[in-house]
Amino acid sequence: MKGIFISLEGSDGAGKSTQIANVRQFFEDRGITPLMTREPGGTAISEKLREILLDKNNSEMSPIAEMMIYASARAQLVAEFIRPALERGEVIICDRYVDSSIAYQAYGRGLGDMVEKVNSYAIDGILPDITFFLDLDPAIGRERISTRAGASTPDRLEQEKMDFHYRVYNGYKAVAEANSERIAVIDANRSIEEIKEDIYDRLKRLCEEKGI
Amino acid sequence: MKGIFISLEGSDGAGKSTQIANVRQFFEDRGITPLMTREPGGTAISEKLREILLDKNNSEMSPIAEMMIYASARAQLVAEFIRPALERGEVIICDRYVDSSIAYQAYGRGLGDMVEKVNSYAIDGILPDITFFLDLDPAIGRERISTRAGASTPDRLEQEKMDFHYRVYNGYKAVAEANSERIAVIDANRSIEEIKEDIYDRLKRLCEEKGI
Repeated sequence: MKGIFISLEGSDGAGKSTQIANVRQFFEDRGITPLMTREPGGTAISEKLREILLDKNNSEMSPIAEMMIYASARAQLVAEFIRPALERGEVIICDRYVDSSIAYQAYGRGLGDMVEKVNSYAIDGILPDITFFLDLDPAIGRERISTRAGASTPDRLEQEKMDFHYRVYNGYKAVAEANSERIAVIDANRSIEEIKEDIYDRLKRLCEEKGI
Repeated sequence: MKGIFISLEGSDGAGKSTQIANVRQFFEDRGITPLMTREPGGTAISEKLREILLDKNNSEMSPIAEMMIYASARAQLVAEFIRPALERGEVIICDRYVDSSIAYQAYGRGLGDMVEKVNSYAIDGILPDITFFLDLDPAIGRERISTRAGASTPDRLEQEKMDFHYRVYNGYKAVAEANSERIAVIDANRSIEEIKEDIYDRLKRLCEEKGI
């Protein structure tokens, strides 16, 4: 694969959107226009699956079905968008990827090992070159969200109880520890500038390794 | 589980709809109203997934994503409908179930063992008491469909080429052989009445075993 694949992970309110914009800027400053995508979504089929996942009327969704719909959307994104783009040598920045499913479904929902097994088929060997995990206590993230100007009504997932979000958070930390060669843990309880500097340091190293 | 779970499988044109009506009649003649369902579908969420699967505009759907969307719909059907109904002691008649995925995705699409693995999570231990496989050469099924009065435009799956349908057919035969204690192979190249008699014989035996 000639391209570079970067994913960003973290609980709600950890500052993911802001840092995604910074990662984009990093590459644009080097004359590279990265391809931006998100999960669940990023292709026509995956976005239709996203609608089902986020629809508040689907409260009766079973945890296994939910996990598999995420994996379906990911499988389509990999086959239709990520793999071809990496083969062409593009830089891809993805808002969430497989680690989200491990954190939310395996740990948050308690589904365990089946999540990794199903997702191994979905990603078909494609893992990010680097994943930034924005590490922030969920309670702080919650507070940040609730005080945002123009905060919208929470969707089906945002409505989950706080103990769920702590299970997700602990899941992220376990995955980061088990994949420390790929996942960079970024302390997100700091200023936007400090977080950005950490991320830029890691991106510079990655670009050196890739010869960019 | 107190209930009875029956599935019917077969290629297009094998007479599945007619025999589903006969199975229903068998139970109604005994004063039992069976619950009817179908795959993919049978719950609100699963029917939304069905729409995505059958939509002709989704021609870029990857084989792995397709397999996982079927499994998602099945996981939801099992959790929300089939398992609770069997626990209540209902009789369920399902138009297609997991064997369809093995035949169409593992054999037809050539995805192999991953299909059984993913579906083992989706069905969560729930297999039919009996599955009727209506065994008909796909070429004969094709001919039957094309000469039907008011034949509609073929959907995304019906448009597949003939060699795909032969792979599916061979998949069904392999699954039936490997699960001969559960799957009854019914020669579907006979009159509706002859097929019905075969099915009724098996249903009478099942009811005796279940003490109905």
